Amino acid sequence: MTQPDVHEISLHHLKITDPFLGQYQQLVRDVVIPYQWDALNDRLPEAEPSHAITNFRIAAGLEHGEFYGMVFQDSDVAKWLEAVAWSLCQKPDATLEKTADEVIELVAAAQCDDGYLNTYFTVKAPGERWTNLAECHELYCAGHMIEAGVAFWQATGKRRLLGVVCRLADHLCQVFGPGENQLHGYPGHPEIELALMRLYEATQEPRYQVLARYFVEQRGTQPHFYDIEYEKRGRTSYWNTYGPAWMVQDKAYSQAHQPLAEQTRAVGHAVRFVYLMTGVAHLARLSGDEEKRRACLRLWENMARRQLYITGGIGSQSSGEAFSTDYDLPNDTVYAESCASIGLIMFARRMLEMEGDSQYADVMERALYNTVLGGMALDGKHFFYVNPLEVHPKTLKFNHIYDHVKPVRQRWFGCACCPPNIARLLTSLGHYIYTAREDALFINLYIGNNVQLPVGDSTLRLRISGDFPWHEEVRIHIDSPRPVEHTLALRLPDWCDAPRVMLNGRPCEGDIRKGYLWLTRTWHEGDTLTLTLPMPVRRVYGNPLVRHVAGKVAIQRGPLIYCLEEADNGSELHNLQLPATSTFHEREGKGIFARQVLIQAEGWRQASPQPESRPLWQYDRSPAQATPQTLTFIPWFSWANRGEGEMRVWINECR
Amino acid sequence: MTQPDVHEISLHHLKITDPFLGQYQQLVRDVVIPYQWDALNDRLPEAEPSHAITNFRIAAGLEHGEFYGMVFQDSDVAKWLEAVAWSLCQKPDATLEKTADEVIELVAAAQCDDGYLNTYFTVKAPGERWTNLAECHELYCAGHMIEAGVAFWQATGKRRLLGVVCRLADHLCQVFGPGENQLHGYPGHPEIELALMRLYEATQEPRYQVLARYFVEQRGTQPHFYDIEYEKRGRTSYWNTYGPAWMVQDKAYSQAHQPLAEQTRAVGHAVRFVYLMTGVAHLARLSGDEEKRRACLRLWENMARRQLYITGGIGSQSSGEAFSTDYDLPNDTVYAESCASIGLIMFARRMLEMEGDSQYADVMERALYNTVLGGMALDGKHFFYVNPLEVHPKTLKFNHIYDHVKPVRQRWFGCACCPPNIARLLTSLGHYIYTAREDALFINLYIGNNVQLPVGDSTLRLRISGDFPWHEEVRIHIDSPRPVEHTLALRLPDWCDAPRVMLNGRPCEGDIRKGYLWLTRTWHEGDTLTLTLPMPVRRVYGNPLVRHVAGKVAIQRGPLIYCLEEADNGSELHNLQLPATSTFHEREGKGIFARQVLIQAEGWRQASPQPESRPLWQYDRSPAQATPQTLTFIPWFSWANRGEGEMRVWINECR
Repeated sequence: MTQPDVHEISLHHLKITDPFLGQYQQLVRDVVIPYQWDALNDRLPEAEPSHAITNFRIAAGLEHGEFYGMVFQDSDVAKWLEAVAWSLCQKPDATLEKTADEVIELVAAAQCDDGYLNTYFTVKAPGERWTNLAECHELYCAGHMIEAGVAFWQATGKRRLLGVVCRLADHLCQVFGPGENQLHGYPGHPEIELALMRLYEATQEPRYQVLARYFVEQRGTQPHFYDIEYEKRGRTSYWNTYGPAWMVQDKAYSQAHQPLAEQTRAVGHAVRFVYLMTGVAHLARLSGDEEKRRACLRLWENMARRQLYITGGIGSQSSGEAFSTDYDLPNDTVYAESCASIGLIMFARRMLEMEGDSQYADVMERALYNTVLGGMALDGKHFFYVNPLEVHPKTLKFNHIYDHVKPVRQRWFGCACCPPNIARLLTSLGHYIYTAREDALFINLYIGNNVQLPVGDSTLRLRISGDFPWHEEVRIHIDSPRPVEHTLALRLPDWCDAPRVMLNGRPCEGDIRKGYLWLTRTWHEGDTLTLTLPMPVRRVYGNPLVRHVAGKVAIQRGPLIYCLEEADNGSELHNLQLPATSTFHEREGKGIFARQVLIQAEGWRQASPQPESRPLWQYDRSPAQATPQTLTFIPWFSWANRGEGEMRVWINECR
Repeated sequence: MTQPDVHEISLHHLKITDPFLGQYQQLVRDVVIPYQWDALNDRLPEAEPSHAITNFRIAAGLEHGEFYGMVFQDSDVAKWLEAVAWSLCQKPDATLEKTADEVIELVAAAQCDDGYLNTYFTVKAPGERWTNLAECHELYCAGHMIEAGVAFWQATGKRRLLGVVCRLADHLCQVFGPGENQLHGYPGHPEIELALMRLYEATQEPRYQVLARYFVEQRGTQPHFYDIEYEKRGRTSYWNTYGPAWMVQDKAYSQAHQPLAEQTRAVGHAVRFVYLMTGVAHLARLSGDEEKRRACLRLWENMARRQLYITGGIGSQSSGEAFSTDYDLPNDTVYAESCASIGLIMFARRMLEMEGDSQYADVMERALYNTVLGGMALDGKHFFYVNPLEVHPKTLKFNHIYDHVKPVRQRWFGCACCPPNIARLLTSLGHYIYTAREDALFINLYIGNNVQLPVGDSTLRLRISGDFPWHEEVRIHIDSPRPVEHTLALRLPDWCDAPRVMLNGRPCEGDIRKGYLWLTRTWHEGDTLTLTLPMPVRRVYGNPLVRHVAGKVAIQRGPLIYCLEEADNGSELHNLQLPATSTFHEREGKGIFARQVLIQAEGWRQASPQPESRPLWQYDRSPAQATPQTLTFIPWFSWANRGEGEMRVWINECR
């Protein structure tokens, strides 16, 4: 397999101008990053303490005290540093950069002489380094710090943190490998694989790719490393959530139940799965490894065609924050962690780089505009970890199958995986808009931006504008002062039946390959592509194997999934019905929905007077009579911004 | 409040002749009781060891060893003894009676000098008696042994076990009460209350009723006894299922969150709730306590009108085997323990005795003919603890919200509460058929039987025959050789719109009071009442507040709820639709359904060819097309007798 070269676009040369997502980026810069910095320093009286910075100070010998927090607490600092790095690309901020530099010095000071870096083990259990890969997130934390190191170098040119993480990675190369005195293990929570691939791409140091491959290929082999290390450490167990050593025993939870080459289904902890596969896809492309590519294709297909929510969520169940099985997609007990959709976007990016196939961008867009945006409140301080498609708040606190579901976004809390992940994704959106291949520039997402990138000896400058995802027209302007011959590959979204492309006002034709319109020519300054992506409101119907949506319909416009909320439609949303033939009307939102498109349709409510005074059931005739009601749909990512109330994506359809 | 006297019918004078339930009684005698005896003695290689008899031998000093099993293991022996007692009423069995006498001697030998009786504490923790009422089932086990003692005396006239349990009850009267040196506590798991009331009724010893009232009235008062004893014993906790001391903290789990007089909703562990209320209703009637009667009416109403499954199941969730909240009645994640429906029948019996209102008999019948019968396989050796209304077996082992759900009945296992409970209920069915009040003989259930009972100075003999629940005609023959003046109150079931009653071939009229037809006359030998209860197949519709059944319909005939199974209807039952207007056809079942009425109707299947090769969703048109299909419904209690397969009670309705 020969793979075309892919060039990572420098975020210095890409500026998001999107009226919609630009707001989110600004929110991350202005609110989320400072808020998270306060959280890391335990300055939020309303939130659980983080202690993450203090852990580093203690590890660095600058302070006395005990480690506090999750075993993976270090990763919050790393993710914050990564978000800061990408944010500095968008907008220089000397104060913020100085703060970050100080944190980096702190991280460097906490690094051990041999390159080891992890405050939990350094402070709390120095003798237990690398004795519990299955459970203890050491390599996970290392991976996040490596990502931060690469990002900070790319963003600022400063090599301080890159040096730290190269020393860390070099230490890993010594500790892990096939040698007699090396550990033959691999992490319970993947992340190091994708991080080593980023570090390899940044430094071109082959041993980082070799180690990434080693971790991937060791995974799930027998005799099982998790069992070996479990016996070796005297059968101690860090997590006992579901009984002693469950994480060691339930190997599918960590995708370690069998070698990747034999795996056929997306299983286990959803975040672990997509993190692992992000690294594997990157490795497959850069090493031209056809077997690994086939594993990526196979497992993506299982996930996307049998275990993916319409909102771009993955992970059908709370137990293990995990996949369930094919076609098991409950709307109310779902987990669909924000982090899992972020990981899904990362996985999709690597698949796009390898395959140039729009199906991956379709999923990326779906996850971004629905679950990821929905994961953060517009104040930048409240977050969903769990993203249900149906909520009945009156029941949540009584039925424990809903213990994980919150009816409104929560403040930062102890296991703060999602908020900083949203921050680093939104600040690095530029990496997902394009795939810059040597043979074409793929435009994956129609987010407004200006970019410049090298094409051969020339520089291609282009500018995307429009009002996506609300308005159908996207314009792509060429701003290169000198003509550039190149191919632009425009994604034709799966939700759009009849896209139209004009060049300088005239119809324009090209080849369609794997869902992209390939347009090859010499581009001149002032050339303008006008892409019209009609966005009629569309009904969506589930596969008949998904029992949770039988007889139901969902509403989508552009990439956005819509829902009903109690605030607009009253309670007991299960009694609302949308006729199969009703007409949709678009309405401009107001207040918190300003600039958003709302949708209305005439439907029915099945109701009976004073149902609370009636028995639980009756014979022969339904107690409910249909009365007409106007149904108002809001974009699902906006739900739960008006207090607690019912919400529902899949609506009963009637004829 | 003055309550009419109620006379408990002696099971010596009542013989079940019912062709349908008679088989179950015979099964209990021939199979279940011997099988359970083997289980109690650890002679079932396929089942978890019980150790229950050995525990008594160790406590009696006849054997050395350790206690093994649940903290409430003794209750299995007690429940077995009770089932044996009722079984001996039906059919003398000298060998079985001798075995039971030996067990009773063993129980007597295990009793301490002061009357205390509990093998767990005697063998394992003698110093910890009465230190953990919230968690440790001491009073629960005592209650079951008291029930066995009363039953064995009533069945055989032998006072040996009655003497043992009176000594035990006397010991309790010393230990518990308002005195300074007495414990002010009450059990975490109610049962002693209903047992003391039975013992009071049997012995007329007032102190047993006084103690029952004490337990009921102490419940939920402040300062809370569970907290006091928790502190006193050094904050140790027996159960840690949901975290340390959860059972102490979650007081609603044990209905101990507030005094009964203040409780307004059925909450917590469903079995505990109905056991408690059985005792409270009995106490309310016998003591004429209007406040307690009002609590019974109030809590019954909440349960029956907001938290009861159509199958007579209660307990919407696995966590805590508990009620959830009003109108939260999921069909697939439901718990609906067999024991809870048995307790519901006991509660209904006591309400019937107090109120003479058929609504209680309607629920009793529903629970008996659906959940309780469904709880046991026709081999008498396999049991459901959990009784779902919808099962999708392919998903069960992957999604942990279904961990408690089994797709087929299981063998006897360690926490063997349900099987012996089913046995004692089915052997004592005679107690539920009639309510023998001084002013009327209420016929609650139309189970074939002969009975004789005193009416004033006379003896009323009557005989019920028919083929309930399959055939609409029930005959009630008077067999008294001498005329008897009395009132027969015939229940008019809620599922029957147009019951007809003939006396000796002529129309017969009476008063209808609270759902019973009161017929007062002098009855002569040979008088025959013919009660026709038309049993058309009826559609059942849920209250609009139950979101799990919106747009769905269930099928009922007589008291039986029907369901679709995969074996008859293919898989993916969620794609089947029953038109609102289709005609039902009754079919005589064959094989395992011999003598049962099956139901067919023309319906539709929403299907698409090769759904597994299609995406998870599609736009604009449903991928499914309707094709006609004959739907076959079986009685729900018969489900899962043909191996694993899908099952569904609530079916999508179409117009």
